[in-house]
Amino acid sequence: MGATDFSHLDKTGRARMVDVGAKPLQQRRAVAEGWLRCAPETINQLRARALPKGDVLAVAQIAGIQAAKRTAELIPLCHPLALDVVEVGFALESDRIGIRAVAAITARTGIEMEALTAVSVAALTLYDMCKAVDKGMVIEGIRLVEKTKV
Amino acid sequence: MGATDFSHLDKTGRARMVDVGAKPLQQRRAVAEGWLRCAPETINQLRARALPKGDVLAVAQIAGIQAAKRTAELIPLCHPLALDVVEVGFALESDRIGIRAVAAITARTGIEMEALTAVSVAALTLYDMCKAVDKGMVIEGIRLVEKTKV
Amino acid sequence: MGATDFSHLDKTGRARMVDVGAKPLQQRRAVAEGWLRCAPETINQLRARALPKGDVLAVAQIAGIQAAKRTAELIPLCHPLALDVVEVGFALESDRIGIRAVAAITARTGIEMEALTAVSVAALTLYDMCKAVDKGMVIEGIRLVEKTKV
Amino acid sequence: MGATDFSHLDKTGRARMVDVGAKPLQQRRAVAEGWLRCAPETINQLRARALPKGDVLAVAQIAGIQAAKRTAELIPLCHPLALDVVEVGFALESDRIGIRAVAAITARTGIEMEALTAVSVAALTLYDMCKAVDKGMVIEGIRLVEKTKV
Amino acid sequence: MGATDFSHLDKTGRARMVDVGAKPLQQRRAVAEGWLRCAPETINQLRARALPKGDVLAVAQIAGIQAAKRTAELIPLCHPLALDVVEVGFALESDRIGIRAVAAITARTGIEMEALTAVSVAALTLYDMCKAVDKGMVIEGIRLVEKTKV
Amino acid sequence: MGATDFSHLDKTGRARMVDVGAKPLQQRRAVAEGWLRCAPETINQLRARALPKGDVLAVAQIAGIQAAKRTAELIPLCHPLALDVVEVGFALESDRIGIRAVAAITARTGIEMEALTAVSVAALTLYDMCKAVDKGMVIEGIRLVEKTKV
Repeated sequence: MGATDFSHLDKTGRARMVDVGAKPLQQRRAVAEGWLRCAPETINQLRARALPKGDVLAVAQIAGIQAAKRTAELIPLCHPLALDVVEVGFALESDRIGIRAVAAITARTGIEMEALTAVSVAALTLYDMCKAVDKGMVIEGIRLVEKTKV
Repeated sequence: MGATDFSHLDKTGRARMVDVGAKPLQQRRAVAEGWLRCAPETINQLRARALPKGDVLAVAQIAGIQAAKRTAELIPLCHPLALDVVEVGFALESDRIGIRAVAAITARTGIEMEALTAVSVAALTLYDMCKAVDKGMVIEGIRLVEKTKV
Repeated sequence: MGATDFSHLDKTGRARMVDVGAKPLQQRRAVAEGWLRCAPETINQLRARALPKGDVLAVAQIAGIQAAKRTAELIPLCHPLALDVVEVGFALESDRIGIRAVAAITARTGIEMEALTAVSVAALTLYDMCKAVDKGMVIEGIRLVEKTKV
Repeated sequence: MGATDFSHLDKTGRARMVDVGAKPLQQRRAVAEGWLRCAPETINQLRARALPKGDVLAVAQIAGIQAAKRTAELIPLCHPLALDVVEVGFALESDRIGIRAVAAITARTGIEMEALTAVSVAALTLYDMCKAVDKGMVIEGIRLVEKTKV
Repeated sequence: MGATDFSHLDKTGRARMVDVGAKPLQQRRAVAEGWLRCAPETINQLRARALPKGDVLAVAQIAGIQAAKRTAELIPLCHPLALDVVEVGFALESDRIGIRAVAAITARTGIEMEALTAVSVAALTLYDMCKAVDKGMVIEGIRLVEKTKV
Repeated sequence: MGATDFSHLDKTGRARMVDVGAKPLQQRRAVAEGWLRCAPETINQLRARALPKGDVLAVAQIAGIQAAKRTAELIPLCHPLALDVVEVGFALESDRIGIRAVAAITARTGIEMEALTAVSVAALTLYDMCKAVDKGMVIEGIRLVEKTKV
């Protein structure tokens, strides 16, 4: 391509993936959480496994785990990572469902996006499973709780 | 399989996809929104296109559109749908970024999950693009704003 | 490309997708089934929900539903289809687990491959969930049970 | 979200998917073609099925068909479409391989991108299959040959 | 989230991915096999490359290889793995087609599910390619043949 | 499966993935480029950000990066790789758009296919974004520019 100048475009604010090639392999762990605010009656039906789409927490848990594995497909500048483990758990309160995800890996870059993606997609799945009976739900408070590397 | 009884398991709360085969084709439209709360300095850098990963809103918009098209892969009991259109827009305020998605389709089932998924993945992408400079961001207020069918 | 002859290669046995453009839209339904043969002790642990990877049937059911939606990605000459519904159920016997899937659609082509894919991936998931305690499992008897169109 | 103004961002050149909801369902067909220029010796080895990775044309054909089905995942503003058929064929010349793809659908929007994607991914696959023996290949001349709707 | 107790839910039988972070990297290899039982006439047509969908074994082989690479997307608690190699081969007998897959990797966890997935999806693809001429096929005998690590 | 002979089929030219298990981990880098030839007026509208689908280069860049990460899904015999970085840049000339992609990794096998896939899908996306105003575009000159390992 001879003298064609590609480099000047790199300075105009276009997207850049971080090059992690020079970073060391480290054991990394991230914890994220979030909430689905819903009607108290929805919590009651969920506890009673009486919702029309079935076992809400089991489905949301699988959805969160599966989404964590596909984070790099969803978030354009994330690196593909081979996760060591993802865990997704729930806490039922009177008018909201807590979602917590833990992701761990030995890699050159962090995995907070994997944990946050697991929480987000688990929350969306809870929403989908409950929306026939509850029209006013809100997903809120999705944030990183902890991030460590060794 | 003769007298094997599969049906009794269907009553134990396992997941059930809704059968939409008998529903009419209708024009459906859903609007969802959500927010990424962040530091005012992050908004400043975003406006100045000074963030290390580049043009944050352009990347988040594409990520949201792409995710909407893959909603049925992410959310286990969602139906695969051939969307007519998805739009993702943003609003910058002093300490948060608003995300709004509109999805429309001619189908047998609604598309609120597609709009909510677009908002969620756009929010996660904003988070990813800004996390090098802002460690305290929170995704919040993801909800359905409007849902119509004709 | 002028006189370049592409057509002669079509006669050498290469793969051909069936053109369904001229077929009518019909309501189609397919039922498939299969079995995972395992040790009686595995069935006991599964009933007691004592397996190390957790709620085996819930995970396998979701996996089967999700796989049915992705059949056209897995099987090269399958058409992409927007399923109306997929159901996956199980039957526990003394030394095997039955898997049954029902898929339905309004489309120009049949969906037996979607039902068979749901059964196969549910069986693989059961295998994965039980393999820590049972090294001799065999997946068998995967076949189409029923196929109708209206 | 009250008075928040999302609309002003829509005017700044951000990406917009075309809304096809008001367009009629029509039978649409597109033909695309392209070429992999390579050494004459590579063509000889391909004809003799002597290349180290095996039956080059069979693999490239499947790759092209599979990619056409995933066009909307690859190209951000493409609509998801349920193709009626995709065909991929090849023509061997002395120093290049011709690739032709035909895609057809009954839909609200055209499918030239599906045909072009099939050609592109088939060409990339040919490149991958031949690169151990030919370091100077070039993919060229990928274009739309024909586009019709009825 | 203060005193919210997520941990008690982990004891109720929900799904758990195994944490492989502390396991050593080892060279691992798995061999799986399975069968598609079909009419003798189907085998004859397959040998003659006279089936309507084309070169059955070539398509099934690619489908099996591609599926092995996507095992972690299909089976919820599988770890994403970067395979070193997957091979899929076939054996034609008078009334059935044998399918054998070998998968190898340097990783912290085994790859029997990748080999079994390759066999299963290759079998489904054979079924799809032959179903126009043979309505009574059965997939059977899918099992792990060998598993080694060094 | 006893004396069943699978091995003879391996000699008939079927597809073979290269086993990279014995290769050393090396830092690898590949640069690819290609062109979209278009009307001068299209370049003018692109510079003016006046095209109907919006910010063409931003969308094409993301599409190229995302496609590079999915190369092993698109090209059947490619190995799944966890890229360290992918960059995609553009150069506007009077009647064509240059596309350049750089991919880097620490792995057992090269990544020229990832760089070539990024260029190809970025070119297809440019085509899609411009096709409403330009019917005669051609994708050309996609080739490997540089390949190194350390």
